[in-house]
Amino acid sequence: MNKPPKIGVGVIGTGRIGKLHIQHLSQNIPDAELIAICSLDTETAQTLTEQFNIPQITSDYPTLLSNSQIDAVIVASSTDTHVEICQAAAEAGKHIFCEKPIALDLKQIDETLTIVEKAEVKFQVGFNRRFDTNFMRVREAVTSGEIGEPHILRITSRDPAPPPIEYVKLSGGIFLDMTIHDFDMARYLIDDEVVEVYAVGDVRVDPKIGEAGDIDTAVITLRFQNGVLATIDNSREAIYGYDQRVEVFGSKGMVVAGNPLTNTVTFSGSEGSSAASPLYFFVERYKEAYLSELHAFIRCIKENTQPPVTGIDGRAPIVMGYAALKSLRGNRPVLLSEIL
Amino acid sequence: MNKPPKIGVGVIGTGRIGKLHIQHLSQNIPDAELIAICSLDTETAQTLTEQFNIPQITSDYPTLLSNSQIDAVIVASSTDTHVEICQAAAEAGKHIFCEKPIALDLKQIDETLTIVEKAEVKFQVGFNRRFDTNFMRVREAVTSGEIGEPHILRITSRDPAPPPIEYVKLSGGIFLDMTIHDFDMARYLIDDEVVEVYAVGDVRVDPKIGEAGDIDTAVITLRFQNGVLATIDNSREAIYGYDQRVEVFGSKGMVVAGNPLTNTVTFSGSEGSSAASPLYFFVERYKEAYLSELHAFIRCIKENTQPPVTGIDGRAPIVMGYAALKSLRGNRPVLLSEIL
Amino acid sequence: MNKPPKIGVGVIGTGRIGKLHIQHLSQNIPDAELIAICSLDTETAQTLTEQFNIPQITSDYPTLLSNSQIDAVIVASSTDTHVEICQAAAEAGKHIFCEKPIALDLKQIDETLTIVEKAEVKFQVGFNRRFDTNFMRVREAVTSGEIGEPHILRITSRDPAPPPIEYVKLSGGIFLDMTIHDFDMARYLIDDEVVEVYAVGDVRVDPKIGEAGDIDTAVITLRFQNGVLATIDNSREAIYGYDQRVEVFGSKGMVVAGNPLTNTVTFSGSEGSSAASPLYFFVERYKEAYLSELHAFIRCIKENTQPPVTGIDGRAPIVMGYAALKSLRGNRPVLLSEIL
Amino acid sequence: MNKPPKIGVGVIGTGRIGKLHIQHLSQNIPDAELIAICSLDTETAQTLTEQFNIPQITSDYPTLLSNSQIDAVIVASSTDTHVEICQAAAEAGKHIFCEKPIALDLKQIDETLTIVEKAEVKFQVGFNRRFDTNFMRVREAVTSGEIGEPHILRITSRDPAPPPIEYVKLSGGIFLDMTIHDFDMARYLIDDEVVEVYAVGDVRVDPKIGEAGDIDTAVITLRFQNGVLATIDNSREAIYGYDQRVEVFGSKGMVVAGNPLTNTVTFSGSEGSSAASPLYFFVERYKEAYLSELHAFIRCIKENTQPPVTGIDGRAPIVMGYAALKSLRGNRPVLLSEIL
Repeated sequence: MNKPPKIGVGVIGTGRIGKLHIQHLSQNIPDAELIAICSLDTETAQTLTEQFNIPQITSDYPTLLSNSQIDAVIVASSTDTHVEICQAAAEAGKHIFCEKPIALDLKQIDETLTIVEKAEVKFQVGFNRRFDTNFMRVREAVTSGEIGEPHILRITSRDPAPPPIEYVKLSGGIFLDMTIHDFDMARYLIDDEVVEVYAVGDVRVDPKIGEAGDIDTAVITLRFQNGVLATIDNSREAIYGYDQRVEVFGSKGMVVAGNPLTNTVTFSGSEGSSAASPLYFFVERYKEAYLSELHAFIRCIKENTQPPVTGIDGRAPIVMGYAALKSLRGNRPVLLSEIL
Repeated sequence: MNKPPKIGVGVIGTGRIGKLHIQHLSQNIPDAELIAICSLDTETAQTLTEQFNIPQITSDYPTLLSNSQIDAVIVASSTDTHVEICQAAAEAGKHIFCEKPIALDLKQIDETLTIVEKAEVKFQVGFNRRFDTNFMRVREAVTSGEIGEPHILRITSRDPAPPPIEYVKLSGGIFLDMTIHDFDMARYLIDDEVVEVYAVGDVRVDPKIGEAGDIDTAVITLRFQNGVLATIDNSREAIYGYDQRVEVFGSKGMVVAGNPLTNTVTFSGSEGSSAASPLYFFVERYKEAYLSELHAFIRCIKENTQPPVTGIDGRAPIVMGYAALKSLRGNRPVLLSEIL
Repeated sequence: MNKPPKIGVGVIGTGRIGKLHIQHLSQNIPDAELIAICSLDTETAQTLTEQFNIPQITSDYPTLLSNSQIDAVIVASSTDTHVEICQAAAEAGKHIFCEKPIALDLKQIDETLTIVEKAEVKFQVGFNRRFDTNFMRVREAVTSGEIGEPHILRITSRDPAPPPIEYVKLSGGIFLDMTIHDFDMARYLIDDEVVEVYAVGDVRVDPKIGEAGDIDTAVITLRFQNGVLATIDNSREAIYGYDQRVEVFGSKGMVVAGNPLTNTVTFSGSEGSSAASPLYFFVERYKEAYLSELHAFIRCIKENTQPPVTGIDGRAPIVMGYAALKSLRGNRPVLLSEIL
Repeated sequence: MNKPPKIGVGVIGTGRIGKLHIQHLSQNIPDAELIAICSLDTETAQTLTEQFNIPQITSDYPTLLSNSQIDAVIVASSTDTHVEICQAAAEAGKHIFCEKPIALDLKQIDETLTIVEKAEVKFQVGFNRRFDTNFMRVREAVTSGEIGEPHILRITSRDPAPPPIEYVKLSGGIFLDMTIHDFDMARYLIDDEVVEVYAVGDVRVDPKIGEAGDIDTAVITLRFQNGVLATIDNSREAIYGYDQRVEVFGSKGMVVAGNPLTNTVTFSGSEGSSAASPLYFFVERYKEAYLSELHAFIRCIKENTQPPVTGIDGRAPIVMGYAALKSLRGNRPVLLSEIL
């Protein structure tokens, strides 16, 4: 009785998220085998290779793609390399897990998705929050009809601290860098398409972000095809920690996901009671979700099913981001149909 | 040692709120003395008079206004009578507590406020929610600097059930009838003026509300002079009860007021745990606040200070309501300066 | 159509609780009419009489009892006068609401209950906590079978601050003064009789309490006839406020009542989040319960039904208190049957 | 630059907890290297060996102990084998991590601890709950003085479902099998020794447990040397899931650890709101704690420090268990000094 062969995986990029995928593939996904990693940072790559006993290490992604033991690649390199690597991977017949955003240019995204489709490889986008247990439970309450017809969606998404100003400059702006996750969450929770976006925003956290041409505080209104009205509010700095809450209100009830805390302890003293902070940032908060999305990717290859986050899911939030930007600049609601 | 004389009060109108004021004046406000009530509903008036031992009863408000024992009047009659009664009361030299809205016509409001000012009587508007302990605590956290510079305000305001359709038809629409409280709350919590409003909305609860020319579900974005961005979401029907929550997010923290529940009990069973519903509706939820606003009114007369909710506070939310309506119809953000 | 006659009531005693009953009878119980009060404190009595417009005022309770307009009396004088007054009231044919404890002497209690029974007047004991909405909901979850067979009961009962040492000396000790409420709560929630008590305790809060022969911290185990095991823990000083929680665990679930807080607001800052304190002490916490118990008393007279808290309910916690004291002193479990 | 050598570890026993340790040692503890496992269940051992690439596999523990690459052993075999294996391991100079209980016989424990001491090897007992983040935070609040002098401790510890009756028969009874963890928790949180135990208990969950000579429901009172009074309540079946809460009340405040839930979502509907269940059982609830205790064990070897859970910590709860049993049978408080 032979064991089923494992899915051979190569990881391209060894930044924070790349490392996380490498660890998960090495330790926690029995159906996958980490064959190779590709990194421009040779020291990091060397350390990882030893730590996780990785067979192949390269700084040249075509070398990795030519390894016939590799069935699938994780593209976790910098955003500006995604398109080139994804296209090459598809042409090499490798299944692709691509970190978000696919790209900041819609034409390039479309080109890539066409190539991927032609190559008939799986293509999953790294919207990890969809795999968070809490948000999965919220979506289930919506799609199962538990809350009846959904009417109003509220998303709060605030980072504990702004990224370095150099990062901000290359990020594509708050809507494409940060709100993109919330745009995806909105589509995921309501299971419908957004038709119009209205965005207001300002520089409240750090004037340097303004000097870099970006904003750090925003409130966005979405209108869905099915009539749901949504608000998203963002800040680059919530002093109390990573704040990621959602609420869906419908004709038969409301479902709310709060922030998981670092512990369940409360202290009661003469000034009232106090409780712990939320888990600090995305690595802590979405630890399990990062693992689950990889499981799901490997499973869709093994079972030859549709990936749970498709190329279309990767594209739509980019369109919403551009609509939000256009709305902010023109101070008017913008139809998604106005974008490309 | 003489006891200080009590403030003589007359109440005009004996609907739900009028009755509540009558009860409070009779039982809970030692500094006030209820001298007379005026009602077109003679049966109700008779019952109240007996129950609370009220000296004078009339169906003609000028009669009440001519009673020299009366120092102040509570105007709790139907909205369309407010202007006439308030003007007559001011001219009779009576201090005025006027239920919201003062009127639906801005010119009439301005005329009334001018007359009131000239008469040098106190004029307080019945925005009871400002006296809710929870919201008072939130405002304190904002104005004291506890949360630093405020950046984002979120208000959720949903009724447990829509009013009768006949009421809807005369209400002036959701923005002037329901959101008006949230517009006031926004100004109260942020302690600043709104400059622009953007509103989206739809009929999701009951098609009859649409046939009456109104909407029942709305999401509104506000932009304040001081840069705060706010969202309000409204529904005419929250199946789980009266939902009145606010959240202010700032540079040094966030403050959130949740819904008071009918009890503190949780049940844990095989399906998880369950807790009680919010207090059903405004009479239960704002019971103490209704009493506190009257206390404050009587106190401002006794101490000859500025009422805590002024004529300007009564006018501003009406302007915001018209801006919201214009925004909804034009699908564009509307500056308050566009309204008269 | 004649209105039904009101129940005429006299209140004996004008301490903190007496005043509360006077206020409730004057303002909030339409079926009752406050006819007279009896107080040794003539100044307080005078003030109350004016404030609430009370027809009769006396410092001599037999005078009050001889007033034929009086159907019922509230005995809120000091504990050592309860027996004499209750007996006289019963003999005068008045219904009786007696504050807890009826007396500290079991023989006197029994004598009183016999006289009351013979007089066929209603007799209700002031265990106000039974009328707290939260605890009523817990009891309902037990008696309705919602939690299945009850197995374990936990009661936490801690005061925000110890009483004056002079009070402690006359109080009969923590078990008869403070735990007595919890003994009653235990019987009320489980709806069954306790058979055995084991108590440990110590002086942890204030050595003066020890010098007065009392303890200030205690943990008590109860065993019920139906097999339920219970723990009560008491402290005379909880720095965070009045702590009154109960939990019943059974075969089909658990039901827990937490402390109501002074507001629903939470603040989130860099050190975590904070929430408000519990309502400070019994007057705030049991405000509604004090009113409800009076309503129930008046109703049982009007409807000629059994009072919701009987003489037996008044006696049983005293027996438990003596058992606890005996247990503490002998450091062994004590059967209630060992107490006279 | 040489890397520091890893601690070589052998695991004896491949039941549920043994497997968990094997997985943790293989994947999550960089400073340890899993050298060998010993199991009587050859099939399980074979699977584990392949899955985790374990160099040596044996069904004979002396073989494992003679492997010179092994510095430390994890004793996770059945309780009746602990003493023999621990003694042999100590004599072989191996550091020892021993699952709780060390043994059910106090003489055997003492003998083992003497041998361990003479061998000068590390000896840590598997009281995993001490490494739970929530309980660590509670202990910190006690030992740091945050809550002042501790006065009262409450521990609730209820399993979601009783073990198989065959397990019950061999378990040594509820106090030595289940409450043992709570006895340890009590000592850990209060950081002091218990002097007296009083236990009541009964068969409420399953008569078969009674037929096996055990009870399934218990309430225990502890008295500490420093005056703290504690209650523990246990049930073998909490229908709502694994219930593990603690509360310490002191002169300056109270600290409470609640149950972590499976998600943060609440649903609000017409019947109130509902929330998720606690994490189901110990493997889910103490997942991180099981890993942390191993980290701590490996660290104390590397750094040559005292293990965080010593032999004395392993012994004391056994003594408390026997005292509880004696108390239950004699229906009287039992001093720990009465137990050998």
